[in-house]
Amino acid sequence: MGLDEATQKPHDRLAAALAADLDAVNSLIRDRMASRHAPRIPEVTAHLVEAGGKRLRPMLTLAAARLCGYDGPFHVHLAATVEFIHTATLLHDDVVDESARRRGRPTANLLWDNKSSVLVGDYLFARSFQLMVETGSLRVLDILADASATIAEGEVLQLTAAQDLGTDRAIYLQVVRGKTAALFAAATEVGGVIAGAPPAQIAALRTYGDALGVAFQIVDDLLDYGGSDAVIGKNTGDDFRERKVTLPVIHAVEKADVAERAFWSRVIEQGQQAEGDLGQALAIMARHGAMHSARDEAVMWAGTARDALAVLPDHPLRHMLEDLADYVVARLQ
Amino acid sequence: MGLDEATQKPHDRLAAALAADLDAVNSLIRDRMASRHAPRIPEVTAHLVEAGGKRLRPMLTLAAARLCGYDGPFHVHLAATVEFIHTATLLHDDVVDESARRRGRPTANLLWDNKSSVLVGDYLFARSFQLMVETGSLRVLDILADASATIAEGEVLQLTAAQDLGTDRAIYLQVVRGKTAALFAAATEVGGVIAGAPPAQIAALRTYGDALGVAFQIVDDLLDYGGSDAVIGKNTGDDFRERKVTLPVIHAVEKADVAERAFWSRVIEQGQQAEGDLGQALAIMARHGAMHSARDEAVMWAGTARDALAVLPDHPLRHMLEDLADYVVARLQ
Repeated sequence: MGLDEATQKPHDRLAAALAADLDAVNSLIRDRMASRHAPRIPEVTAHLVEAGGKRLRPMLTLAAARLCGYDGPFHVHLAATVEFIHTATLLHDDVVDESARRRGRPTANLLWDNKSSVLVGDYLFARSFQLMVETGSLRVLDILADASATIAEGEVLQLTAAQDLGTDRAIYLQVVRGKTAALFAAATEVGGVIAGAPPAQIAALRTYGDALGVAFQIVDDLLDYGGSDAVIGKNTGDDFRERKVTLPVIHAVEKADVAERAFWSRVIEQGQQAEGDLGQALAIMARHGAMHSARDEAVMWAGTARDALAVLPDHPLRHMLEDLADYVVARLQ
Repeated sequence: MGLDEATQKPHDRLAAALAADLDAVNSLIRDRMASRHAPRIPEVTAHLVEAGGKRLRPMLTLAAARLCGYDGPFHVHLAATVEFIHTATLLHDDVVDESARRRGRPTANLLWDNKSSVLVGDYLFARSFQLMVETGSLRVLDILADASATIAEGEVLQLTAAQDLGTDRAIYLQVVRGKTAALFAAATEVGGVIAGAPPAQIAALRTYGDALGVAFQIVDDLLDYGGSDAVIGKNTGDDFRERKVTLPVIHAVEKADVAERAFWSRVIEQGQQAEGDLGQALAIMARHGAMHSARDEAVMWAGTARDALAVLPDHPLRHMLEDLADYVVARLQ
C-alpha cells in the first residue's frame, strides 16, 4: 500500500479500486433514467443522480461482489438498482419532509412540484425493478422486495414515532433500519448472492451492511445536533424543529427530571418552540451525556460491521470496507 | 345459462363464477396489508381496499388463469398483486390530483395527509413486489416490472400533456396506457403466463387487457363530460377544471375554428375559466360530434378486446370477458 492509499479516505480508496465498475454503473444509470415518452423524467432525476452523490450504496454492492470473486456483469445492474431505490426514496422524502435542500441543491420538490417528485420516484422504483429482474436471480429479487417493504414500513413508522416521547430505542432502531440500514444490508447481501458466495459469507455481508447503516444513521442524527460536541451550526437543528425523536433525545428523555420532561413535552410533543430552545436542548443533552452515549452506540455498531467481515477473503476491498466502518463514526470528530 | 345469468351484468357474473378465488384474494390482501411495525398502514389502506372496489383487475387475472386451465395457488397472489399496485397508484394519485373524494369516501389524503399517502402507497408497492416474487416466475416479474414503468411514465407524461393543446391522440393514448391499460394488460397476461398457456393465447390475453383498458379509460373520460349526450351533472367537469386534454377535447380542438381555438386556449392552456365555460365547451364538442367520435373509438377498442379472445378455449369465463368488453362501453348509455 503506497503512502497515498494510506492517507486517502476509505471511501475514496473504494472509488479508486472500483473505478471501472463505477463508470459502468454511471452509464447504466444515465441510460435507464431516459424516458422516451416522458422527457421530464431525466430533467427531474439528473440533478439528484448527477449531483455528486458519493455512490456509497452502489460501491457496497460492487465491493461485496468483487470481494467474493464475481466476474459477471450483473453486479453493475444491482449497484444501479440500489442507487435508483435510494434516489426514489429521496424524491418521496422531499414530498414528505418539505425539506428545502438536498445535497446543497434545490430539491426536486421545489424545482418542480410534489407531483413530479412522487411520480418520478415511482418511475425510478419501476426502473430499479426492471434492472433486478434482468439479473434473473429470484433470490436477489426476494432480498430487494423485503428491503423495499422494510424501507416503506420504517418511513411510515417514523411518521408516528416523531412528536412522541414514548418512542424508545427499539422503535428508533426500527425506523433507522427502514431509513438507512435495510438498503445498506440489501446492497451488500445481493453483492454476495450474485457472486455465489457461501452462506456464511453472505450472512456476514448482510450483517456488515445492516450494522454500517445503523452506525451511519446514528452519526447523521448526532451531526444534526452538531456532533459529539453539540455545537450549533448552520446545518444543525433540523430534526429538533421537525420534532423527530432521535437517539440523543431518547437518551436525554430517559434521564430527564420533572422540569426537563416538561421541556421535552413542550418542544417535541406540543411543538411549541421558542428562540433559545435548541440551545436549551443541547445543554440538557450535554448534562446527561446523551451525545456521548449515542456516539458510543455508533462506535459499537461500527465495530459489529468491521468484525463481521472476518469470515470474508483477505482482500484489499475487505480492508477498505473495514476502514469504511470506522470512518463512518470518525465523521463525528 | 339461466335467466338470472342472462340478465346479470358481466361483472357480477364473473364475481359469481370466481367467488371462491375472490375470497382467497380478499383474505390474502387483508393478511398482507397488516404491518407489525407500522399499525397506521392498515388504517390508511383499509378504507380504500375494503371500500367495495369492484375488484375488476384481480378478476381479470383470476379469469385469465382459470380460463387457461390453471389449478395452482399463484393466480391468487397475482390477483392480490394487481389490486395492491392499483391501490398504491390511487394513493399516489390522491397526492397528485388533490382529489377530494374517491369511491364516494374521503380520500386517504384528506383523512390523513400527503405523507401517509405517499409512504403507504410505497408500502403497498413493496408488498405487491413480495407477492409476485413468491410465485417464483421471472416471466411474471418481467411483465409486472415493465407495467410498473409504463404506469409511472404515463403518469409523468400526463403532467406535461395536461394544459397543452398540442396533446394529440398519440400522446393521449400513451397516457391512457399508463393510467389504465398497462395494468389491465399485465393483469390478464400474467394470468395466462402462470397457467402455462400457449404463446398465442398469452398474446391474446394481453391484447384483450390492453384494449379493454383503453376502452375503459376513454369511457371514463367521456363520462367526465356527462357521457355521449354530454349532460352536465354533479360528477361532470373535473377534467375540464383540471385542464386535462382528453379525447373529446382533442377531437374538438382538431376541428376548431379561430374563435373556438381561442376559447380552448383560454380555458385549457391559460386556465382562465368562468361560469358557463363548461357548458360552452360541451356545446362546441357537440357541434363537432366530438363525444360521438370518442364513443366510436371506445366501441372500436371494445371490439378489439372481444375479438382477441377468439383463440382462447370456449369456456363460460371467456364469454363473460367478451361481454365485459361490450359492457364497458354500454356504461355510456
